[in-house]
Amino acid sequence: MIDIGIVGGSGYTGGELLRLLANHPEAKVVAVTSRKLAGKPVSSVHPHLQSVCDLNFEAPSAREIAERCDVVFTAVPHGTAMDWVPELLDAGAKVIDLSSDYRLPVEVFEATYKTRHRAPRDSVFGMTELHPEVASAKLVGNPGCYPTGATLAVAPLASAGLVERVVYDSKSGISGAGVEPTETSHYPNMAENVIPYKLTTHRHVPEIKQELGRLSPGVKVCFTPHVFPGIRGILTTAHVFVREEAVDTIQDRDAVMRIYREFYKKAHFVRMPAAVPKLSSVRGSNFCDISFEAEKGSDRLVVISAIDNLVKGASGQAIQNMNLMAGLDERTGLWFPGMAP
Amino acid sequence: MIDIGIVGGSGYTGGELLRLLANHPEAKVVAVTSRKLAGKPVSSVHPHLQSVCDLNFEAPSAREIAERCDVVFTAVPHGTAMDWVPELLDAGAKVIDLSSDYRLPVEVFEATYKTRHRAPRDSVFGMTELHPEVASAKLVGNPGCYPTGATLAVAPLASAGLVERVVYDSKSGISGAGVEPTETSHYPNMAENVIPYKLTTHRHVPEIKQELGRLSPGVKVCFTPHVFPGIRGILTTAHVFVREEAVDTIQDRDAVMRIYREFYKKAHFVRMPAAVPKLSSVRGSNFCDISFEAEKGSDRLVVISAIDNLVKGASGQAIQNMNLMAGLDERTGLWFPGMAP
Amino acid sequence: MIDIGIVGGSGYTGGELLRLLANHPEAKVVAVTSRKLAGKPVSSVHPHLQSVCDLNFEAPSAREIAERCDVVFTAVPHGTAMDWVPELLDAGAKVIDLSSDYRLPVEVFEATYKTRHRAPRDSVFGMTELHPEVASAKLVGNPGCYPTGATLAVAPLASAGLVERVVYDSKSGISGAGVEPTETSHYPNMAENVIPYKLTTHRHVPEIKQELGRLSPGVKVCFTPHVFPGIRGILTTAHVFVREEAVDTIQDRDAVMRIYREFYKKAHFVRMPAAVPKLSSVRGSNFCDISFEAEKGSDRLVVISAIDNLVKGASGQAIQNMNLMAGLDERTGLWFPGMAP
Amino acid sequence: MIDIGIVGGSGYTGGELLRLLANHPEAKVVAVTSRKLAGKPVSSVHPHLQSVCDLNFEAPSAREIAERCDVVFTAVPHGTAMDWVPELLDAGAKVIDLSSDYRLPVEVFEATYKTRHRAPRDSVFGMTELHPEVASAKLVGNPGCYPTGATLAVAPLASAGLVERVVYDSKSGISGAGVEPTETSHYPNMAENVIPYKLTTHRHVPEIKQELGRLSPGVKVCFTPHVFPGIRGILTTAHVFVREEAVDTIQDRDAVMRIYREFYKKAHFVRMPAAVPKLSSVRGSNFCDISFEAEKGSDRLVVISAIDNLVKGASGQAIQNMNLMAGLDERTGLWFPGMAP
Repeated sequence: MIDIGIVGGSGYTGGELLRLLANHPEAKVVAVTSRKLAGKPVSSVHPHLQSVCDLNFEAPSAREIAERCDVVFTAVPHGTAMDWVPELLDAGAKVIDLSSDYRLPVEVFEATYKTRHRAPRDSVFGMTELHPEVASAKLVGNPGCYPTGATLAVAPLASAGLVERVVYDSKSGISGAGVEPTETSHYPNMAENVIPYKLTTHRHVPEIKQELGRLSPGVKVCFTPHVFPGIRGILTTAHVFVREEAVDTIQDRDAVMRIYREFYKKAHFVRMPAAVPKLSSVRGSNFCDISFEAEKGSDRLVVISAIDNLVKGASGQAIQNMNLMAGLDERTGLWFPGMAP
Repeated sequence: MIDIGIVGGSGYTGGELLRLLANHPEAKVVAVTSRKLAGKPVSSVHPHLQSVCDLNFEAPSAREIAERCDVVFTAVPHGTAMDWVPELLDAGAKVIDLSSDYRLPVEVFEATYKTRHRAPRDSVFGMTELHPEVASAKLVGNPGCYPTGATLAVAPLASAGLVERVVYDSKSGISGAGVEPTETSHYPNMAENVIPYKLTTHRHVPEIKQELGRLSPGVKVCFTPHVFPGIRGILTTAHVFVREEAVDTIQDRDAVMRIYREFYKKAHFVRMPAAVPKLSSVRGSNFCDISFEAEKGSDRLVVISAIDNLVKGASGQAIQNMNLMAGLDERTGLWFPGMAP
Repeated sequence: MIDIGIVGGSGYTGGELLRLLANHPEAKVVAVTSRKLAGKPVSSVHPHLQSVCDLNFEAPSAREIAERCDVVFTAVPHGTAMDWVPELLDAGAKVIDLSSDYRLPVEVFEATYKTRHRAPRDSVFGMTELHPEVASAKLVGNPGCYPTGATLAVAPLASAGLVERVVYDSKSGISGAGVEPTETSHYPNMAENVIPYKLTTHRHVPEIKQELGRLSPGVKVCFTPHVFPGIRGILTTAHVFVREEAVDTIQDRDAVMRIYREFYKKAHFVRMPAAVPKLSSVRGSNFCDISFEAEKGSDRLVVISAIDNLVKGASGQAIQNMNLMAGLDERTGLWFPGMAP
Repeated sequence: MIDIGIVGGSGYTGGELLRLLANHPEAKVVAVTSRKLAGKPVSSVHPHLQSVCDLNFEAPSAREIAERCDVVFTAVPHGTAMDWVPELLDAGAKVIDLSSDYRLPVEVFEATYKTRHRAPRDSVFGMTELHPEVASAKLVGNPGCYPTGATLAVAPLASAGLVERVVYDSKSGISGAGVEPTETSHYPNMAENVIPYKLTTHRHVPEIKQELGRLSPGVKVCFTPHVFPGIRGILTTAHVFVREEAVDTIQDRDAVMRIYREFYKKAHFVRMPAAVPKLSSVRGSNFCDISFEAEKGSDRLVVISAIDNLVKGASGQAIQNMNLMAGLDERTGLWFPGMAP
């Protein structure tokens, strides 16, 4: 049994780790931290966990957690994880960081987040489908929610050298903005609206560029995010513009399908459904569903991916990383379907 | 032309007054106040009003407003209106107060709101269907949103002496809770939920008791409010339990219908649709739609009413009051249908 | 391993049985029927089940299914189950019927559903919290969704002899109306609305009366259902009016709590949260969350219950029944938390 | 007073014409047709119109309508309008067709809709901002909902010769799919989902290409539509890729703003709000709100437009056309704000 610690258990990703780990056959959460809620039952802020999780929040030091845990998930805000991670690592724990602190090279992180990185460490970008080296990592930077769906949608095409430019238009459920009420998350503002934001400057772009660029240097990436009136899920519409020499290739549906199937042949959580992916098919689950359609006589291939932002886009992917780091099948404790309707 | 002032124009009821008055043929908004937004365009917080309303927020004194306006709407929080109303009245303006400060006798107000009333004044309860004396009022206490739908649903039966007890179960859109984001209004909390609150202690109960009690002394009132995942609208389910001698009467659908039609024969905004009322039929409009069904062989008559909480339940009803106070037809500027779908 | 058959697998309750049984450690679905979809993969109508459930729909006879299965769930429309159940039983299978065909005495069924019952059989009402005799049943009539939340909310009070009358006001997600699009389920009609229906005549009332009446003969039951704009969940507001001699008792919160705790001491799936129950706390799970509040100085106690209509209100409860019938702990395969947010 | 006829009054655009015309000071609806509802009150399918519109549906011939009306709106399905329009015109009525039958040259129509055009007539594309010649038209082809928001968003840039390619990613409320329940409009399918469809083949594309191509021959247009969980509104995200020589221009926000302001200086219904447009700002109104942001150091300008698909995208724009055709100010009867929240 793997003993698990969760640093920062009061938010959505912390709650989701607890929900998902409640039935993991090889892992057991032994500590959940929250400074402001220390001493209170986890179910006081996560009433859905009542009876299933009887832990109380604690406020131990990094060292204390590391001593009690084999693996620690840090689910704290961006810029805060770096205050926990080094000590956790030094005390011998493996760490999966759900913040943005360990996803990017230091200079890219600092330029993107306008923050000095106080504690750089070697880490692996925790997208197991592209980074099998997660298996031997001590520290994993768990990918952002948008980059997960966006990268998985296009990686096979990029890897095959077909892509000139991708115009990503992503639609996220509002849970991605976190547990704190804001003007945007105010129901009368969010319902019956679709709200574009950070039209050209979202901080997740460097992750997408990093991963696609690794597979296909020079690929151009545009990205515009929106929130839609839904709780969970990210539906990404990737308008892929291919290189001149690939215009014929994308018109051959079977050829494109072979590229995807080959690329994802070992990736259990990537599915290629017959119809256009639905958020309801992945809701609450760790799947990423992908489909595509070429525009006739054009250089455009439209790829759609659907994930649950809190599972495959955060806590589920984190557990998938943990599974690999622990030598388990990546499906362990995560092999359940989405909740539809 | 009636010159209108709105004290407190940055919230939902203020915005709704501006929206509704934009096309009123006999009234013109000349001043809108907001202390924190003084100098900014109204459309900075109400972007839907851009081009149609080109006013800026101001922060004048009560006296200044009263001097510029014939009628002033006070759309400020409960307990604050009493700081404006006396001076407005004294300076000669007629006042329609959308807060709770002038709806109840002082002692009931103080017991309900746990606040001393600093400036009691004579006022009329502004439900024109029950209070034609609004026409000659200087100060109107505009009814609460729940009491509007609840009272109109049952008043004819109470007036006919049929009612023993009413169990009100109301469902409100979340705009009723105001413009400020809260934990309840946070989209991930409100969507896919129905949230009962103040199960037995809502502050609107005394208004309902006052109005029904006036029509039928001793009638028993129970009330439980809920918010549902919608922006606007209050659907009230009134489980009416009738007096023993009325059990046969309510089984005669035509007889009950006659009671309603007679009671509301001059009330243009009360409709009795053939089917169960829909919030979509009254959305954005000043109508209150009502229907009923008796339970066979029982003492229970179920009455359903539907209103838009921000229009008939607040700003529309306020304008209806203004129309009467100005000697206009109550429909002036308000005679448009709901927005469906 | 228990071999499971599902008769009628294309609807919501069928899909939900497949979702929930996918991870049941002691049961395995071996046959799923659908006449019109025979030969097609289950994931063609349930895309969320792709990869997790690789069965195809079949169209075997009742006898064939019974021969291959230990337990059969019938998830077919009301009035159709009776064409399957006798043959399944005669061929030796245990049957859990999710339709209404085996929940009520024949004469009550026939009066309620205006249908002659063509194949009456002995059955147990499958609410394990009230009917431990499920454990030895061959045929279980799985309760309706509304009666589940309504009965569990009030059973302890009825059993304690406190209740005079209950006025149930229930709010259901629209998935309760099934998988076929209707005018009511049309998004522009359902969104931003709350729709009361069958105000005094819902067919689930006899189940509630039967169960409460068993615990407390003569208790009066009123029931009005609504659909609200949500996919899953039933929030039931039970306005409980108590007997004159119980008016003091209900003012003692601890005393009432003891009644509930004692009544449900062995019921793992009934929780009594500290705050008012939320649908989001039970979403996707088999829990029924209950809380209550007495109106001061009144004979009214307001009890709120929250369930997922497709889980505790249908397929989850059916599996809970199966667990008992198979001699397993009722929690087997069902002990996971709701999905929040 | 202009006498108005509406052919096909039972759907959403017919209902919306009735709602909007109810308060038009210069026009009066005198006939509404529906074959299957002839004789029934309009409020039987449009309960929101009760009291405000007391017409009954009729089933007259085209000639009869034309004789009673000055202007006729045809709000019937694509391919059906052509059976009405010629006779209406021949009998002297002016016609505004809300279907797709008169928006495109015959050969483009036939290729797009796979239907032979049985009755071609000269018509004007009814987007008044681009086609002032509407004023003298006898027959107007009222634009599709998507083309309205998409074209208005980019027309000024195209007209200025800046545009190389536009990638449109549009998000529509589900009312755009009409009044008939479908699998997609089924609440449990639509809620919590965002559904892309006709990824590369939507039938509205030729309208956009026609209008932008007129302003800037050779501009490339890609278009992918989605439905989101909302009733009304189309939010269009236009990823505009500019010509090499325009890369610097788009970085100058003021320069781009001047292009828009100049182009729309007479267009009362196009607003350029300070912040990103919201569907809630245009809900129920005839406004089209537009804003833009250039990606730093890139050839991409992101333009966002928001309209109400049933108003500016259909019935409101149709009335705007009628106003011009009747020599009225285009704002007549349409100059009211959106409904927010």
